[in-house]
Amino acid sequence: MVGYAFMGAAHSQGWRTAGRVFDLPLSPELAVICGRDADAVRAAAGRYGWAETETDWRALVERDDVDLVDICTPGDSHAEIALAALAAGKHVLCEKPLANTVEEAEAMARAAEAAAAHGRLAMVGFNYRRVPATALARRMVGEGRIGRLRHVRVAYLQDWLVDPEFPLTWRLRREQAGSGSLGDLGAHIVDLAQYLAGERLAGVSAITETFVRERPLPSAPSSGLAAVSTAGTGQVTVDDAALFTGRFTSGALASFEATRYATGRKNALRIELNGERGSLAFDLERLNELEYHDGTEPGTHAGFRRILVTEPDHPYLEGWWPPGHGLGYEHTFVHQARDLVHAVAEGRGPEPSFADGLQVQRVLAAVEESAEKNSVYTPIAA
Amino acid sequence: MVGYAFMGAAHSQGWRTAGRVFDLPLSPELAVICGRDADAVRAAAGRYGWAETETDWRALVERDDVDLVDICTPGDSHAEIALAALAAGKHVLCEKPLANTVEEAEAMARAAEAAAAHGRLAMVGFNYRRVPATALARRMVGEGRIGRLRHVRVAYLQDWLVDPEFPLTWRLRREQAGSGSLGDLGAHIVDLAQYLAGERLAGVSAITETFVRERPLPSAPSSGLAAVSTAGTGQVTVDDAALFTGRFTSGALASFEATRYATGRKNALRIELNGERGSLAFDLERLNELEYHDGTEPGTHAGFRRILVTEPDHPYLEGWWPPGHGLGYEHTFVHQARDLVHAVAEGRGPEPSFADGLQVQRVLAAVEESAEKNSVYTPIAA
Amino acid sequence: MVGYAFMGAAHSQGWRTAGRVFDLPLSPELAVICGRDADAVRAAAGRYGWAETETDWRALVERDDVDLVDICTPGDSHAEIALAALAAGKHVLCEKPLANTVEEAEAMARAAEAAAAHGRLAMVGFNYRRVPATALARRMVGEGRIGRLRHVRVAYLQDWLVDPEFPLTWRLRREQAGSGSLGDLGAHIVDLAQYLAGERLAGVSAITETFVRERPLPSAPSSGLAAVSTAGTGQVTVDDAALFTGRFTSGALASFEATRYATGRKNALRIELNGERGSLAFDLERLNELEYHDGTEPGTHAGFRRILVTEPDHPYLEGWWPPGHGLGYEHTFVHQARDLVHAVAEGRGPEPSFADGLQVQRVLAAVEESAEKNSVYTPIAA
Amino acid sequence: MVGYAFMGAAHSQGWRTAGRVFDLPLSPELAVICGRDADAVRAAAGRYGWAETETDWRALVERDDVDLVDICTPGDSHAEIALAALAAGKHVLCEKPLANTVEEAEAMARAAEAAAAHGRLAMVGFNYRRVPATALARRMVGEGRIGRLRHVRVAYLQDWLVDPEFPLTWRLRREQAGSGSLGDLGAHIVDLAQYLAGERLAGVSAITETFVRERPLPSAPSSGLAAVSTAGTGQVTVDDAALFTGRFTSGALASFEATRYATGRKNALRIELNGERGSLAFDLERLNELEYHDGTEPGTHAGFRRILVTEPDHPYLEGWWPPGHGLGYEHTFVHQARDLVHAVAEGRGPEPSFADGLQVQRVLAAVEESAEKNSVYTPIAA
Repeated sequence: MVGYAFMGAAHSQGWRTAGRVFDLPLSPELAVICGRDADAVRAAAGRYGWAETETDWRALVERDDVDLVDICTPGDSHAEIALAALAAGKHVLCEKPLANTVEEAEAMARAAEAAAAHGRLAMVGFNYRRVPATALARRMVGEGRIGRLRHVRVAYLQDWLVDPEFPLTWRLRREQAGSGSLGDLGAHIVDLAQYLAGERLAGVSAITETFVRERPLPSAPSSGLAAVSTAGTGQVTVDDAALFTGRFTSGALASFEATRYATGRKNALRIELNGERGSLAFDLERLNELEYHDGTEPGTHAGFRRILVTEPDHPYLEGWWPPGHGLGYEHTFVHQARDLVHAVAEGRGPEPSFADGLQVQRVLAAVEESAEKNSVYTPIAA
Repeated sequence: MVGYAFMGAAHSQGWRTAGRVFDLPLSPELAVICGRDADAVRAAAGRYGWAETETDWRALVERDDVDLVDICTPGDSHAEIALAALAAGKHVLCEKPLANTVEEAEAMARAAEAAAAHGRLAMVGFNYRRVPATALARRMVGEGRIGRLRHVRVAYLQDWLVDPEFPLTWRLRREQAGSGSLGDLGAHIVDLAQYLAGERLAGVSAITETFVRERPLPSAPSSGLAAVSTAGTGQVTVDDAALFTGRFTSGALASFEATRYATGRKNALRIELNGERGSLAFDLERLNELEYHDGTEPGTHAGFRRILVTEPDHPYLEGWWPPGHGLGYEHTFVHQARDLVHAVAEGRGPEPSFADGLQVQRVLAAVEESAEKNSVYTPIAA
Repeated sequence: MVGYAFMGAAHSQGWRTAGRVFDLPLSPELAVICGRDADAVRAAAGRYGWAETETDWRALVERDDVDLVDICTPGDSHAEIALAALAAGKHVLCEKPLANTVEEAEAMARAAEAAAAHGRLAMVGFNYRRVPATALARRMVGEGRIGRLRHVRVAYLQDWLVDPEFPLTWRLRREQAGSGSLGDLGAHIVDLAQYLAGERLAGVSAITETFVRERPLPSAPSSGLAAVSTAGTGQVTVDDAALFTGRFTSGALASFEATRYATGRKNALRIELNGERGSLAFDLERLNELEYHDGTEPGTHAGFRRILVTEPDHPYLEGWWPPGHGLGYEHTFVHQARDLVHAVAEGRGPEPSFADGLQVQRVLAAVEESAEKNSVYTPIAA
Repeated sequence: MVGYAFMGAAHSQGWRTAGRVFDLPLSPELAVICGRDADAVRAAAGRYGWAETETDWRALVERDDVDLVDICTPGDSHAEIALAALAAGKHVLCEKPLANTVEEAEAMARAAEAAAAHGRLAMVGFNYRRVPATALARRMVGEGRIGRLRHVRVAYLQDWLVDPEFPLTWRLRREQAGSGSLGDLGAHIVDLAQYLAGERLAGVSAITETFVRERPLPSAPSSGLAAVSTAGTGQVTVDDAALFTGRFTSGALASFEATRYATGRKNALRIELNGERGSLAFDLERLNELEYHDGTEPGTHAGFRRILVTEPDHPYLEGWWPPGHGLGYEHTFVHQARDLVHAVAEGRGPEPSFADGLQVQRVLAAVEESAEKNSVYTPIAA
C-alpha cells in the first residue's frame, strides 16, 4: 500500500477484516506499506498491521512478495505509481479520483487494458458502490423496479470549509488535488449516479465557485504540502463547490451538487432516482437505510418505505450480523477488498475498472469546461 | 372572485376564515363569484359561501359593491382581468404566475404602480410565503442567523404526470398555462427562494424536458380547454420538468428543480439555505416543521433541529391553536387574506407586489431562454 | 354550543366549515353560543360566527330553534348539561372526557340510550378518530392488514407543565377537571387505541404521579376557576403523568403513557400497533402521515413506509385538496361535524357513542384504582 | 474466549480491531478460543483470528498464557466459567445477562469483589453503553443538560419470532436462556436506562406474555440445544414479551418494553429521557445519531436536534473517521475492548462491574415476580 493517511487507514481496515467476515478464495496479507517519512510509515505499519515498510514506492512496486498495490496517495501521484505497478506485473487498486487529468487517466486505462491481457487487474476505489444499501439499489434498478428513469438527483454535502480560517491543506491546491469538491466529492457522485442508473451521462451544464479564495497556510507542513512558508496565507486554487445538471443517454435528467460549504451537513451524499414505476433514495448519513417507493402499488397504501438494509439476503450481508445490527462507513472498504480478491481469484475484470474511472474523469473535465464556457451544455467525450 | 376551481375553493376558504381567527381591521365579505358556466358558478357560490354570481368577469369588475377582485383563473386571462380591475379602481389579488409572458407581466406591474398612486393595491398570490415555517425562516434569515449565504437548494417535486395515460388538461397546453412545471411549480420556488434569501437571482443556466409528448385528450371538456375532439391524443406543449442552476447577486449559488415526474413525491417543495453561520431546511410535505442548524454552537452538541412551528410567537400563530396542534395547506390562504386586509386597511403596498411577480416572470423567461440556448448562463433582465 | 374557549373555537370552525367542503344532507347553522360572561360570549359569537348568545345553558337547551347542543365546557358540567339537553329532545355532542366520574358517565349513557329510542343522538368528541391517517389505520386493521394483534404502544406526550412556575389552572384541579393528564390525554389514547385495535382492554396496571404538587395561583381568574385569592400558591390535585400497561381481550399487550412533562414534545400522540402480518404507526405531530409495514412482503424489500394520507380515496379526503396538500388539527372537528350531521340525517347512532365514552371512563377508573392499589392488575368493569 | 457464535464473532472483531484504532496501553492477543466441537472451534479460530483452540473451557482457564477470559456462551454456563476463571486468577469479561438467576449472579459478584483484591477485574458486556451516541448522552446527563429527570421511556423491539413456524432455539428454553426477551433485550435496556439516568430503579410493575407457546423443533441440533428429537414441536418456556413500568429512586417514572413480536422492528432499542431542562432520545437502528432538545432555549427556535455523533470530541471518536463517517454495531465491541484494556492496565475497576450486572439481574427478578403476582409493584432488592 502506498499512502497511510485517512484512506490508508480505511483500506488497511478493509484488507485486514475481509477474510474475517467473508469466505475468500485467497487470503490477503498486509505485506508492505510505503510512505516518504520513515518514522511515520513505521508508526503506521504498526498501527494498521503491515509487516514491513518502504519509503520509496518504486521499491515497493518492484518487490516480488507484493502481488497487489493499493494506491492511497493524493491524486497527483496516482498515474505514475499505477503505471509502474501495472508494468511490474502487479494488480492495482487506485483510490478515486483515478487521476488529476484526463490525459493521465487515459494512460492508466490503456495500461490497465494491456495488463488485463496478462491477467493483471486494475480497479478504482469508488467505495460507495459497496454500501449494502447502494448495492441493493443497483440490484433493484436492474430488476426493473423503478422502470424507465426520469430523474436522478444527487448531492454530496459537507461543511468543513465553512470557516474561512480553516487552513490551506493539499486538498485546496490544484497541483496536488487536481480539483476541489469536484474531484473529491463530485467524482463519487458521478460514479455512483451512473452506476445506479445503469447508464452514462451524455452531457452537462455547470457552475463552479470558490467562495473563500485565500486561506491561512497550515502551521506545520501537512503530509502532502511540500514547502510551506512559516506564516501568512495562500491562494485556494480549486473549486469550493460545483453544481451541474445533465442528461443521461436515455434522456433522463440529472442534477448534481458537490460542496464543502453546506453548514451542518457532514457527509451527506444523497441520491434519489425517480422512474416510471418507482423511486429510490439514499443518504450516506444513514447508510444502513434505503428508501423505496413502489409506484405500482395502489395509491392508498403507497409511500416511501425505509428498508433497513441489514437482512441476510441483502448485498454483502451474508457475513455480517443479524437484522437491524447496522454497518458503518469503513465496511465499504471491507467489501471492496472482498470483491477485488474474488476478481483476482477468478481472473475477471473488477468493477469499477480504470476505464470506468477514466469516464468519470471525462465527466469532470466536461464540468470544468462547461463552467469555463458560461455553463454551456457540454457533451461528454466518448 | 373570478374562477372557482382548486384555487377558487382555497381562496374562498381563506377569505371566509381569516376574520374568525385573526383580529382584522376590516371584515372581508364574500360578495360575488364569477365563472362562465352559470350553473357551475351558482353551485360554487353555494358551496363556498359567496352571496352572488356573475358569468362575465367584465360585469364583476364594474360592480360598485366589489372593492377587491381575486383572480383565480388560468394564467392566460390574468393580465386582461387584472388590468381591467385596476382600471376600475379595485384592489387586486392575482394567483401566480402573474402572467404567461413577461410583456403581460410588465403591463400589470405598470398598472399596479399607477393604481398605487390612487391607493389601490395589487398583490400576487405566492401563498407559500405564508406558511408559518417559511415566514419563520425569513425572519431568522433577516436576523442574521445563517449569516452570509452560500447555497440555496430548492426542488418542487410532484408525480401526477408519471402515468403516460394521464389526460391532456389545460395545464399541459402552452396557450393556456404559459408553461408547465416551470410556471406552476418553478414560479413558486423562484419566489420563495428569493424571498427567503432576501436577495434576487442574477442569472440562470437551465435544462427543460417534456418526457411524454403526446397524451390522451380528456374525455369531457375540461373547464379551460375550449374545443376538444371526441377522442384521440394531443400534443403536450409545455415542459414536464425544468432544472436550473444560478447565482444570486451576492454570489451565493442556487439549484432549482421543478417536476411532475418524481414518483412518490406528492407536493414536495423543499428548500435548504446554507450560510456561514447556519442552515435552514423546509419541506412542504411536513409544513409545520422547520429544520435549523445553528453553526455557532459547539460541534459536540450541534445538529439540525426540528422546530415545530406552532408556538404562539411564531408567525401567524397568535390566532391559532396551542403548541403542537398543526396547521394545513389551506391556512396559507387564510394568512394571505389576513395580510392583504391589513395592507388595504393601512394603505401600504402588499408583498409580493406585481413588481415582484414580474421579476419572477423574468427569471422564468431567462430559464426558458437558457434552455433554448444550450443551457448557456443567462442573466436576469433588470 | 356551551363553552367558547379552546374547544369552543375548534368546534365552531368544524361546524362552519363542514358544509363548505363536504356534501352534507343537512346544513348546520351556528344558532346560539352560551357562556356565563355576557360580554365575553358576545365577543366569541362575533369571532366564531354564532348568530345569538345566551348566558345560561338552561335557557339554551330549552330553545326551540336549537336541534343540537355541543358541550365544550370543563368535564364537571358535562353530565348536567347533557342530561338536560337530551331530556329537552336535543341531539348532543359532548367533548371528552364524557364526565368526571363513572357514575355521571353511566347516567349519561343511560340517557343517551333512552333518547335514541326517540331518535335523538348523543356522541362524544374523541376527535382523533377523525384524523384521515387514524381513520385509514382503522380501515387497514379492519381489512386484516396487520393480522392478529400482538402489541399496542401508545403515548400522549406534552410538556406545558415542565416549568414549576406554570400557574394552577382549572385543568390542575380535580373538582373541575376530574383528573389530570389521565382524563385529558389518557382518555384520548384509550379511545383511539381501542378504536384502532377494534377491541377493548380487559385490564390495566398503573402508576400515576404528581411531580409538582404546588403551583402559583393564576393572576386573573381563569374562565373556570371561580374564586381565586389574590396571590400565593395552591395544591395540584390531579395527576401530572399516568403510565399503564394492560391486556386487550384478545391477549394483545398494551402500554400507555400520558404526561405533560415530556420536555420538547408538544402534542406527540403516538400509537403503534404490531400484528402478525404487519404494523402501523402514527404520530399526531405529523398528522398527515401513517407508517405501515407490510409483514407479508419479502424481507429484502420490506420496511416501514410513510403513507402521505392525502389521496382522494383516503378517509375524508374526497372534499379536500390534491395529493400532498396536508390538513391540520382543526380539520378533525370538520370531519366530526360531517359525521354527526350524516348520523342525524340518517337516524343512525353516531360513533363514538356515550356508551363508548362510558367504557373509556371505566378504563380510566381502573387506572386510578390500580394506581391506588400498588399497581395491581385491575380488570375493566363491563 | 469461550463460545464462538454471534457474540464470539463480535467480541473477536472487538479484540482484533481495538489496537488498530486506539492507542492502547497493552496489546491484546487473541490466544485461545474454546468450544465443545473441535472442528467447529478450529474453523472459528481460523475465521476470527485466534491462535489456538481448546474444547474444554476448564483447560482454557488453567492456561498460563491466558490473562483474560471472555465468556460468550449462553447464560446457563456464565457463572461456572466465570467463577473458575476468577479463581484461576484471570480477568473476566462476561456477556450479558450476567447469569440466569440472582443466586448465580450474587456468587459471581462476590467472586469479582474477592478477585479485585488481587487485581483481577471482572466486567459484564453491556455493550450498548459504548455506542458513541449513548456515551454522549451519559456525558450530557452528567453535565446537567436535561436537569431533574421526569421520564425514561425505553423499548427494545425486534420481530424475529413473529412467524409461529420459527423454530425452538436455545433462546426459547428457560433452562439455557434463563428468560426470553426479558433477559436478552430487557437486560440491555435496564442497564442502559440506569446508566443514562445515573440512578437506579426502585421498583417495577410488570406483565409478561408468551404469545406462541409451542414451536417446531430445529431440524438440526443448534449449538446449544443438546438433544433434539428428530421432529415435532416443543414448549416455549420463556417470555415472548415483557412490559414493565417503574420508579427511579429520585421519583422519575420509567416504562420498559422488550419484545420479539414488533413486526418490522429489527433492532429498535429506543430510549428517551425527559428532564426539567431538556430531553434526549436514541434509537439503535440509527446508532450514529442522538436527538437532543435543549429546554432552556427560547421556544421560538427550540426543537429536537439530530446530533450526528461522529465529531472528534465525541466519545470514542478520537480514533475513527472524519465527521459524518458513521460507525456500526460491531464497534461497540471495539470500544468495550478498549475500555477493558485501559482498566486492566490502570488497575481500576471496569464498568459495568459484576455488581452492576447483579443489580440488573435483581431488576429482572423483580419483573418476573411482579408479573407472577398480578403486576403488583415490586421493590428491587438492594
